[in-house]
Amino acid sequence: MQIAIAVYPDLTVLDVIGPYQVLTALPGAEVVLCAERPGRVSDDHGRLHLDVETSFADVPEPDVLLVGGGLGTRRLMHPGSAVVEWIRAAHPRTTWTTSVCTGSLLLGAAGVLDGLDATTHWNAVQLLESFGAAYVPERVVERGKVITGAGVSAGIDMALTLVDRLQGPMVAQAIQLAIEYDPRPPFRAGSPATAPAEVTELVRSVMDAAENEVLGD
Amino acid sequence: MQIAIAVYPDLTVLDVIGPYQVLTALPGAEVVLCAERPGRVSDDHGRLHLDVETSFADVPEPDVLLVGGGLGTRRLMHPGSAVVEWIRAAHPRTTWTTSVCTGSLLLGAAGVLDGLDATTHWNAVQLLESFGAAYVPERVVERGKVITGAGVSAGIDMALTLVDRLQGPMVAQAIQLAIEYDPRPPFRAGSPATAPAEVTELVRSVMDAAENEVLGD
Repeated sequence: MQIAIAVYPDLTVLDVIGPYQVLTALPGAEVVLCAERPGRVSDDHGRLHLDVETSFADVPEPDVLLVGGGLGTRRLMHPGSAVVEWIRAAHPRTTWTTSVCTGSLLLGAAGVLDGLDATTHWNAVQLLESFGAAYVPERVVERGKVITGAGVSAGIDMALTLVDRLQGPMVAQAIQLAIEYDPRPPFRAGSPATAPAEVTELVRSVMDAAENEVLGD
Repeated sequence: MQIAIAVYPDLTVLDVIGPYQVLTALPGAEVVLCAERPGRVSDDHGRLHLDVETSFADVPEPDVLLVGGGLGTRRLMHPGSAVVEWIRAAHPRTTWTTSVCTGSLLLGAAGVLDGLDATTHWNAVQLLESFGAAYVPERVVERGKVITGAGVSAGIDMALTLVDRLQGPMVAQAIQLAIEYDPRPPFRAGSPATAPAEVTELVRSVMDAAENEVLGD
């Protein structure tokens, strides 16, 4: 079983590393990080650089396709971008097509989410719906073979759900235990539903400003 | 403020990427990934390669020192290894010295944990205590300026706790919301205290076998 995880410039690295850590523990799975072309791919903070060996063209028919989010999606979420065309071509033959955070915008741009329930980062709902998806405010949304996860850290929950579907609850629990995923967030601030309103407004304004900067490039 | 995150061959990449994602959002912080020497550093699944630009020698006096775990620790947890000597030299002048998972073994080998309460991955307790630390089965253990986190995914909780200490609860909550850290693990299997006994035994045997293979290299 081949699991292809797409990366691209200005990705949010935890979006893909959460699932990577879960899925590399899956017996019999070959996990491949892939990009438009081999070489260095830097994250959206610019402090971390991945050395990627595999191009999208090298993995045209993955069993599982996974794409994370990040500011870089805003430049790529249109027909013709390499990652979107790779998703469009691979999706019909995948067993599972999955996203984390604003990776959903790339699935959307590839036509995967048209008329489908899906989730994304809480601050990207309008963009998600612009691709014909219906936003569902849940951590993990599974519809047919498409599984979308909410923002950034939700990739861990999404990937454990995926492992359950692929190999059952014993394997999923074993991987959860191996990565000691027994979360104890120090605050109840992980969702706009529970965060203080002024915190939500602060984060929204910072994220919107960063997005406008990218869109203005 | 400089935050230095140490990496080395055969690290567990989520150990450091969880905190990286949290700490790069911290206003005024310079987050630096560093290694014995610049170049490629591969994780303990061998599928992910970091391109690291900074050596330990380049960051001799970080304000915050963070080290993650992974199978590679077993080859490095002795006096004289580059990462241990870097920790030993830097620790006296840090504001915070921190670890995730078996990164604690490197703090231990550097003498940081002698006589101190600390945590680590649930399957590395004996090794931790061999360095004079007293294991505390908590997600995050803070003693003076030393903060240790439990296994792998605990780095996110540890880093949010650290942000609270550095810049207070508003900033910590804002970062928690930005990464939508509202965890919903699909199972209650993240700790040996709640996982089915047969799952714990399975994971323990797999992890012990991997460790013995590394120690036998």
